[in-house]
Amino acid sequence: MSTALIAGTGALPALLAAARPGMLICEMEGFAAAVPGAEPLRFRVERLVPFLDALVERGVTQVCFAGAMRRPRLEPELFDARTAALVPRLIGAMQAGDDATLRAVIELFEEWGLGVVGADDIAPDLVPGPGVLTGTPGPADAEDAARAAAIVAALGGVDVGQGAVVAQGLCLAVEALPGTDAMLDFAALHQGLKPDPTGARGVFYKAPKPDQDRRIDLPAIGPQTVARAAAAGLAGIVWQAGGVLLLDRAATQAAAEAAGLFLWAREP
Amino acid sequence: MSTALIAGTGALPALLAAARPGMLICEMEGFAAAVPGAEPLRFRVERLVPFLDALVERGVTQVCFAGAMRRPRLEPELFDARTAALVPRLIGAMQAGDDATLRAVIELFEEWGLGVVGADDIAPDLVPGPGVLTGTPGPADAEDAARAAAIVAALGGVDVGQGAVVAQGLCLAVEALPGTDAMLDFAALHQGLKPDPTGARGVFYKAPKPDQDRRIDLPAIGPQTVARAAAAGLAGIVWQAGGVLLLDRAATQAAAEAAGLFLWAREP
Repeated sequence: MSTALIAGTGALPALLAAARPGMLICEMEGFAAAVPGAEPLRFRVERLVPFLDALVERGVTQVCFAGAMRRPRLEPELFDARTAALVPRLIGAMQAGDDATLRAVIELFEEWGLGVVGADDIAPDLVPGPGVLTGTPGPADAEDAARAAAIVAALGGVDVGQGAVVAQGLCLAVEALPGTDAMLDFAALHQGLKPDPTGARGVFYKAPKPDQDRRIDLPAIGPQTVARAAAAGLAGIVWQAGGVLLLDRAATQAAAEAAGLFLWAREP
Repeated sequence: MSTALIAGTGALPALLAAARPGMLICEMEGFAAAVPGAEPLRFRVERLVPFLDALVERGVTQVCFAGAMRRPRLEPELFDARTAALVPRLIGAMQAGDDATLRAVIELFEEWGLGVVGADDIAPDLVPGPGVLTGTPGPADAEDAARAAAIVAALGGVDVGQGAVVAQGLCLAVEALPGTDAMLDFAALHQGLKPDPTGARGVFYKAPKPDQDRRIDLPAIGPQTVARAAAAGLAGIVWQAGGVLLLDRAATQAAAEAAGLFLWAREP
């Protein structure tokens, strides 16, 4: 089983490369993946078909997508004929939203005989199962987590965000395009709105969209998430067990302990 | 028909008092209503029953709630016996959320024979029916408005917020406890995320929660909403026709025209 890592930016690609040495690292031109020691195979979306052929020629049988990728600016003159023929299909998927785009990409890789696996297949430790990892959530925290989970599920139904901040039953912030860090900064700015200053401090809850393909684009939590949640005055971070990547588990737990936050992989 | 105005803070109470002179103005102790020339009847939640009696004694037959009210800090020693007897009922409603609290308050007034009417009953001009009031929304704006309406409806189902900002199909911000102004400031901060800098500039959409009682707590839009939407680089403001108060219509339209924003009361 020879695996290629389609690596975007962020910490995840390097963590996976360390967990399974010998993978072929691939990166999109213009979006360098920070994988130490790798000599990445570069590709462009305009030449996707030659790239798929190259993977097959090198004996790759499965791929794993990891890290953040942005939609590149496409340059029409760089398309080869076979990739150009795929454009109508991909454009259709892109117009139907992010999830549809990802599904179309997965289908394409599968048509080349390349299986698509999730990051948890490469490094199971990255996706914690149910349980409290650090600290002790109380009953009010459990109520805030349940309310936040309901909010995130409702948002996922309209393809918006993957997170929310709830304190004392009140929704302080909801994740949208600007992402988790921006939402936690917003929650920090407005933390004074919690009605009871001595009551429950609130939770940040994170979950994948209800119908997203979990092999690509799972939401992630890391040490910097802990720092921002602490700055927002929250009691802890809760996520859907099995649905969130915990990047650098040791450092994240240490940061949470130092800040007095709990970390809780909650049963859906 | 003698009407009492239960006046909170903000611009709405004065607008209604001007639209129907002679109403009895009432305000909660500690939350002064800015109604020029009024000598308000003050009440406290701890003495709600004597207040209801006083309204009936003065010949009041209907009431209108207007303006923002915060939950006061209750002082246990100020309760009279009959109001104290209502506490379990009101506490139950308060724990079930804002909408349930408002429904319980309406019920109580109705038990005293006091009809509860909406602000649009006092000043119909404040709640515009369907139509474009200012400017010209284009097809991309209409798509952004439709997507924002779907998002706000989904949020309303979990009792969160009444607004969202959508540009080029992407959700830039969602309203939560901090309110509309905070959300528009957030959208302004992140307006650079719109993928196509020359594409649709996006809309702010506002609607009441799907099952809220429209006689109380309709969302409102005014000239300062226009200023903030303009600062966020948006193309216009859209709201559910019949479901949003337009405070100071002339000033709001003038501000929108000056800023080049459209105002659109959209058919649900």
